[in-house]
Amino acid sequence: MTASIPELLDRKRWGGRLSRAELERLVGGYVRGEVPDYQVAAWLMAVCCQGMDRQELADLTAIMAGSGRRLDLTGIRRPVVDKHSTGGVGDKLSLIVAPLVAALGVGVAKLSGRGLGFTGGTLDKLESFAGLTVELPPDAFMRQIDSIGAAIAGQSPDLAPADGKLYALRDVTGTVGSIPLIASSVMSKKLAGGAPAIVLDVKQGRGAFMRELDAARELASEMMTIGRAAGRRVTAFVTDMDRPLGRCVGNALEVREAIEVLRGEPSDARLVELAMTVAGEMLLLGGAVSSAAEGQARAADGLRSGVGLAKLREIVQAQGGDPAPVDDPGLLPSARVVLDIGAADDGYITDIEPLAIANTANRLGAGRVKKGDPVDHAVGIELLAQIGVHVLAGEPVARVHARTVEAATDAAASVLAAISVSGSAPAPAGVVLDRFSTEG
Amino acid sequence: MTASIPELLDRKRWGGRLSRAELERLVGGYVRGEVPDYQVAAWLMAVCCQGMDRQELADLTAIMAGSGRRLDLTGIRRPVVDKHSTGGVGDKLSLIVAPLVAALGVGVAKLSGRGLGFTGGTLDKLESFAGLTVELPPDAFMRQIDSIGAAIAGQSPDLAPADGKLYALRDVTGTVGSIPLIASSVMSKKLAGGAPAIVLDVKQGRGAFMRELDAARELASEMMTIGRAAGRRVTAFVTDMDRPLGRCVGNALEVREAIEVLRGEPSDARLVELAMTVAGEMLLLGGAVSSAAEGQARAADGLRSGVGLAKLREIVQAQGGDPAPVDDPGLLPSARVVLDIGAADDGYITDIEPLAIANTANRLGAGRVKKGDPVDHAVGIELLAQIGVHVLAGEPVARVHARTVEAATDAAASVLAAISVSGSAPAPAGVVLDRFSTEG
Repeated sequence: MTASIPELLDRKRWGGRLSRAELERLVGGYVRGEVPDYQVAAWLMAVCCQGMDRQELADLTAIMAGSGRRLDLTGIRRPVVDKHSTGGVGDKLSLIVAPLVAALGVGVAKLSGRGLGFTGGTLDKLESFAGLTVELPPDAFMRQIDSIGAAIAGQSPDLAPADGKLYALRDVTGTVGSIPLIASSVMSKKLAGGAPAIVLDVKQGRGAFMRELDAARELASEMMTIGRAAGRRVTAFVTDMDRPLGRCVGNALEVREAIEVLRGEPSDARLVELAMTVAGEMLLLGGAVSSAAEGQARAADGLRSGVGLAKLREIVQAQGGDPAPVDDPGLLPSARVVLDIGAADDGYITDIEPLAIANTANRLGAGRVKKGDPVDHAVGIELLAQIGVHVLAGEPVARVHARTVEAATDAAASVLAAISVSGSAPAPAGVVLDRFSTEG
Repeated sequence: MTASIPELLDRKRWGGRLSRAELERLVGGYVRGEVPDYQVAAWLMAVCCQGMDRQELADLTAIMAGSGRRLDLTGIRRPVVDKHSTGGVGDKLSLIVAPLVAALGVGVAKLSGRGLGFTGGTLDKLESFAGLTVELPPDAFMRQIDSIGAAIAGQSPDLAPADGKLYALRDVTGTVGSIPLIASSVMSKKLAGGAPAIVLDVKQGRGAFMRELDAARELASEMMTIGRAAGRRVTAFVTDMDRPLGRCVGNALEVREAIEVLRGEPSDARLVELAMTVAGEMLLLGGAVSSAAEGQARAADGLRSGVGLAKLREIVQAQGGDPAPVDDPGLLPSARVVLDIGAADDGYITDIEPLAIANTANRLGAGRVKKGDPVDHAVGIELLAQIGVHVLAGEPVARVHARTVEAATDAAASVLAAISVSGSAPAPAGVVLDRFSTEG
């Protein structure tokens, strides 16, 4: 006998499990308009409170991935890898690793998002290049990967439309913060995106959705397991987001920083370490190297040789953008007001609170509060001294890029308050905290 | 800063609490049509999973009780008590205690329901009296209590309308089985009903909504606490519903059994014990006696003297019914087919499964599957031997009252399967399992 929808909800409420057919009836029915939103809202909350087992989660993700179009990347004449970050502060990794990995022989099919709330978005950053479009139809997206090795485009709304519909409901029902719901949301889009291999960067800390290391580990592990169940090669890293990643927060500023890394110029060590780790893993999953260590070495070579920089130029050009800033970052959008901020005291920088930096950058205009808001590519914050560095009172520790003097002085106070200085040096902390992989 | 509704839902999802103003915004807003059902559905599920603390529950109940009309019983010139059962199988207690307590000087304002699913309803049973109406407008309800001491009427839809709206949503979202939601549903109607004292009979066992003793105790305790917070005198009993209550299941059959008890005739000992306990407590809360023991003694006297029977006659008459069956139960609706069922083996009756008996009675036509279905007052099941009794093979253990021979033989097989017979006598089990009271 078929259980009614209220019976399914009651079962989930007590921590029971739904079969694939039952999930299809509920979630598939919702997408088709057969199941009302109040029943799905109750189910979402039950999942938040009771969780899902791995089979349930794999089934849900498969149903969501199958709710719309699926990209078929098998016609591309090179191995293809996708890469995804759960979102953080100053995370310009895609701008570095996509061109670098493509230059080293592995195709990168990067479906990205826009910034929302405290997180930046790769698409917004990339649009710092004048004329560049991120709206690539699926065919153009695949053609570009086939011809130059990489494309960075917005998620097409016909990929995993169930996710869009469920996310809108989660947003208004207090059910955003759930590991299985986050995992199925991310992975349904990755599965529909068609890449046979995926590298996930799960951020953890005060500048991430996952504040707790345990939760980030669980999310990474669940996403990896979903990928395995769907026959994809997946590595999920848990990485530190308890401070901003790199020196810059803001769209064009982050593009400039990515270019500096791709040029092999001296850059923030943690940013480079993470970029090499992710790029090396993408090369491994793409079959270009036979170990992660070899992948990292190849990636580091790629910075020195400048092949990644050249590939970035090609990508910008292929997507209709003016590539001149790749060779002269001074041509990127720049802010009218630039204000340096000096340290209040002598001492070691012991903390840079990432959310405060992100929120300040957003107040300057770098981010958006709601979907569809415009962003200002020029504004943002540069951190001139990282955690662990010793500074003298008055020595510049940050630089604010703003539209007005008022905005700059206002931001300067917030940035200064976000930077802690103390008499004793902090213990060093790693950036890659954990790794889960279908490859064992 | 006022939290948004999604923020309230997220807080509840993590086990936090909502203030009275926040609950008013959510639940009051829902009743006013300002908050959509999907947000309330998510909240209901979060309450199912995370519970509510006592202040939250008292606030929610007060908001629900205040969502419509409130009866003002203060004009009635006698103490007034209400009585409520959470529903069971064969529970004809209201038909006994309402007239008995009224006859002994305490007014009974009994707002009752109809049977649904496996539970019978006092209103359906009472309508076995030809012509009797249970639809008393509030003024007539109060006038009748003032003049003859008791009235038994249907819940007016303008009492606690929030409960009706929330219940309809719970019914379709798998959120019925929640102790705080059940407690607030029952108590909001009791508070709006206006009685200053309430006796609650929380049923526990296979023939009740609460299968587990712990859950029934928690529900009883929560309802008592809500009553205390609202300034009412409340006693909540936890009573056994692991077997049918009394000998009869079915509308007119149960009226006949209640009349037999009110006449002081030999009746099922557990039914009489429970009736005396509840009636005694109603007399105590109504101030007619100074101890529960004195109340029970007065109630037992009332059976011997026949004052309760006389009061039932008055109530039936006042509500437009023909009281003749009170003196001659043979005048009650009777079924065309009556079939006695003999025991299959010699032995002690060790179990009578209450749900099976209820479902069989309903299949005969005594109950309804959905609201608004008609019921057949004549049909039902009589248990001729109770648990613990020794029977010989072939000795009648039950009597089926049915519309057709086919229905009767079908029911007979189900009834026989519901009755266990074994070589050794079962341990006796009490009917009153626990008591929670605002009186300490």
